Amino acid sequence: MSRSLPPNLSAAQFDLALASWRSIVGEPQVVTSAAGLATYLDPFAPGERAAFSASATLLPGSVDEIRAVLRVANQYRIPLWTVSTGRNFAYGGAAPRLPGSVVLDLHRMNRIIEVNETLAYALVEPGVTYFDLHAYLREHGHKLWVDPPAAGWGSVVGNTLERGFGYTAYGDHAAKQCGMEVVLANGDVLRTGMGGIEIGTAWQLYQPGYGPSFDAMFMQSNYGIVTKLGVWLMPAPPAYLLGEIQFQHEADLEAIVEILRPLRLDETIRNHVVIEGGLRRAAGLSTRAQWYEGPGAMPERAVAAMLEKLDVGRWNLHFALYGTPELIDARLAIVQRAFARVPQARFFAKRYAGNAMGDAAGNAASDAQPTAGGDRNLAGIPAMSAFRMLDWRGGAGAHVDFAPVCPATGRDALRQYTMVKTRAAEYGFDYYGGFTAGERHLHHIFAAIFDRGDANQVEQAGQLLRSLMSDARAAGYGEYRAHLAYMDFAAAQYSFNDGALLRLSETIKDALDPNGILAPGKQGIWPAAWRDRRGYT
Amino acid sequence: MSRSLPPNLSAAQFDLALASWRSIVGEPQVVTSAAGLATYLDPFAPGERAAFSASATLLPGSVDEIRAVLRVANQYRIPLWTVSTGRNFAYGGAAPRLPGSVVLDLHRMNRIIEVNETLAYALVEPGVTYFDLHAYLREHGHKLWVDPPAAGWGSVVGNTLERGFGYTAYGDHAAKQCGMEVVLANGDVLRTGMGGIEIGTAWQLYQPGYGPSFDAMFMQSNYGIVTKLGVWLMPAPPAYLLGEIQFQHEADLEAIVEILRPLRLDETIRNHVVIEGGLRRAAGLSTRAQWYEGPGAMPERAVAAMLEKLDVGRWNLHFALYGTPELIDARLAIVQRAFARVPQARFFAKRYAGNAMGDAAGNAASDAQPTAGGDRNLAGIPAMSAFRMLDWRGGAGAHVDFAPVCPATGRDALRQYTMVKTRAAEYGFDYYGGFTAGERHLHHIFAAIFDRGDANQVEQAGQLLRSLMSDARAAGYGEYRAHLAYMDFAAAQYSFNDGALLRLSETIKDALDPNGILAPGKQGIWPAAWRDRRGYT
Repeated sequence: MSRSLPPNLSAAQFDLALASWRSIVGEPQVVTSAAGLATYLDPFAPGERAAFSASATLLPGSVDEIRAVLRVANQYRIPLWTVSTGRNFAYGGAAPRLPGSVVLDLHRMNRIIEVNETLAYALVEPGVTYFDLHAYLREHGHKLWVDPPAAGWGSVVGNTLERGFGYTAYGDHAAKQCGMEVVLANGDVLRTGMGGIEIGTAWQLYQPGYGPSFDAMFMQSNYGIVTKLGVWLMPAPPAYLLGEIQFQHEADLEAIVEILRPLRLDETIRNHVVIEGGLRRAAGLSTRAQWYEGPGAMPERAVAAMLEKLDVGRWNLHFALYGTPELIDARLAIVQRAFARVPQARFFAKRYAGNAMGDAAGNAASDAQPTAGGDRNLAGIPAMSAFRMLDWRGGAGAHVDFAPVCPATGRDALRQYTMVKTRAAEYGFDYYGGFTAGERHLHHIFAAIFDRGDANQVEQAGQLLRSLMSDARAAGYGEYRAHLAYMDFAAAQYSFNDGALLRLSETIKDALDPNGILAPGKQGIWPAAWRDRRGYT
Repeated sequence: MSRSLPPNLSAAQFDLALASWRSIVGEPQVVTSAAGLATYLDPFAPGERAAFSASATLLPGSVDEIRAVLRVANQYRIPLWTVSTGRNFAYGGAAPRLPGSVVLDLHRMNRIIEVNETLAYALVEPGVTYFDLHAYLREHGHKLWVDPPAAGWGSVVGNTLERGFGYTAYGDHAAKQCGMEVVLANGDVLRTGMGGIEIGTAWQLYQPGYGPSFDAMFMQSNYGIVTKLGVWLMPAPPAYLLGEIQFQHEADLEAIVEILRPLRLDETIRNHVVIEGGLRRAAGLSTRAQWYEGPGAMPERAVAAMLEKLDVGRWNLHFALYGTPELIDARLAIVQRAFARVPQARFFAKRYAGNAMGDAAGNAASDAQPTAGGDRNLAGIPAMSAFRMLDWRGGAGAHVDFAPVCPATGRDALRQYTMVKTRAAEYGFDYYGGFTAGERHLHHIFAAIFDRGDANQVEQAGQLLRSLMSDARAAGYGEYRAHLAYMDFAAAQYSFNDGALLRLSETIKDALDPNGILAPGKQGIWPAAWRDRRGYT
């Protein structure tokens, strides 16, 4: 394998830059070996893994080191791709959009700077994972919950910046973020919101501050390097109930969403409810080969037999109720009454004390039925159970996700589901997906699961994603997030007034990063210096 | 009175610009008469009203007209100051920060473009007031509530952009905003978030969209002209309860905040609770002259006598509970149990059906005691009762507000209260104020009420505000909003890393508005062309 270089840079210049960086972060914190760099490739790439390869990786240990690293990058105009811990799996992992970029890996900066139990927040560095924060809270006896995303090993900062979401009442991570420290491309360090008040009192308490608020502009963006982030934490409730409702028919989805929406809007249910497709539910309990080994997507008959045998629903709704026993009772009665309108709906529910933190294996309690399928997350306990999906299809399990925003109406949900399922089957993929319910929208997540060892499956997964994005756009839907390979395509779909939004994004990009050193191409935003690299690869 | 001109512009050039503008918006929509311009002066100016005077006012009727107006402004480099309806009273009204700016008054653009009852949102133009939107919802039988700010005549767009707040569960207006249309200084029109998807489905449903999110950057800013704004509306609850708890002692404030915080954090109480100072509560029922006519702030004895006579508390907490009768009961029990810990606390509560919309006089119901003092707002009914404060001190009643963000702890609240009350008394002002409770912060609002006809009072009010800002900053507090006269001073307080936040603000300002035509000086942000005008006037 020939040596990878940053674009438009000679090997000699790159060596000079690397020498400078070594003097800043230390020899061991500059990775250039093929073996070292291989760990930064996208493990789930829906195409050639080398398409998004790094030329080196730097692991700074402080804000000052980052500032010094930036000076060198500006000098040689070398693009840097920042990752917190690099666990952005299904969207590219730690790999950079522009091949040859240098990965700036912040996982060594992993301090939990502050936890305030009274005001229910934490201030963390990028290397802090959900597991770390959860363990810290337990260790110190803080009566606070994290809101874990599907995989607990991810960075709190990274997940929040990518607008990940979880399962509790704090499931909208971006909405529960408060205050950032950011290093700009020119090395300037700023604090957003109330953080502008030095030795202040409200950096993690009031989001906007005074004047324009910039936090949301540093999410899914390449405008700066976030080095500290405040997150609000949910006070542990006095008690909680984890519930599952299983539905028997595909078309029930419409009624489910129509019944759920008002319950979410009036906060009868405060958590980010998951409406899980039967196949994804089944993947937590079995593997695909037990049910089907033929070509193409699992036939309807095999799916039906599997669901019956496993005794799970075609749709499985996971919800939680938090509060005093009286409030939980009153809300449960409303929920049960509402969903009883769906024929053959089956209810499961189990109550817990607020300090019930689950067993070591990751189950919130011993009853297998109502608490399986990710429920641990609904009680603020990070897990890795989502990775069971990798075993579903066997081989070198991987997945790439299609993530359109769906209006919270039954009609839209059923339409997206039908559209995705039909197209997936054309390419030989099962509908492995579900919906996570905000108040007025649903995050529809479909995972194309494939075997990285099977070149044809890799190819088909890539093709499928492109088709799905076109289908969605034609129907008036847009994605909230996209894999490296589709970042430009997704951005181009936001085409109102000939792409005015992207024009604004790139005007700001050029103002803040004139040399184009920060994450060129991230979410389709290219600095002037690299704008010719835009493309749908 | 000599003719006012835009800064750095000759009368001849201005006449050319005005002629162009007349051809765009029509002769009657260009105001240059002294009488016409006088209506754009700050009615509550804490100093010379002429200090912030406009040279003309333009009233465009459409986005296309705004774009054409901008072309002329760019050509002549004339600063424009945009207002929605110009009701930003206590912070400057419709008056521009840079004297001689041309006011761009958008109140003629007053369409309610869409109301979606199912998904509970509205899309409105800048001229739509809370009264307008409330009337529209009633008229069409939509089971949705607006969240009115203190004065219902204000613009929904204007109030949201200034980060105003209200009293219901939707009291954080900026947090309930979803989707904008913005005209940039160069005339480019963009739609934020999911609005980038043309003929899309989720512009008013999912806030961030794909990539960086800019909505919060267009709030309290001068980066663009917002021409359409989506706001989420609260579904009318099946029932609600309006409650008031009266507390007898000044020092109770500490316990009140400590008890309230967990109830807000766990959403036992979902509305933006108001902790109203006794004097402000009394102003809704009487005038100052009934109790005291001597010099300086009302003495303690007079205040105590007044509160006793009116039978109101030293602190009066206004809360609402929304939901089914069972949920309201369960929550009320929790609230009562919690506040019963404060000696001599007195409870008042009244229940309503969800469709109870109050009587014509603005009371939510007939019981005078528990429902007076702004409670109508807690049921989503806009009012003008806050203006009773103008009668409190008599004469040409005016006020200027001091609005520091306060951590939601009893210690901080009591500290701010004591600090403000003491300083106010020094300048001869009563403590007329209260706290509105978010979850982790309180908006502390103190109004210096003065008689515009009394030059000494005007002068003292201005001096007091400056002192309060310095006091707050020294104690680690910052303001969330400020009057024109103090915008630069407030911005300068956000001084972390030598003002890095303001450097970012102005870098973006220069990129988006190179000629500096949009609202120079707004919230302390000056474009390069006018940066020498920064100052604490």
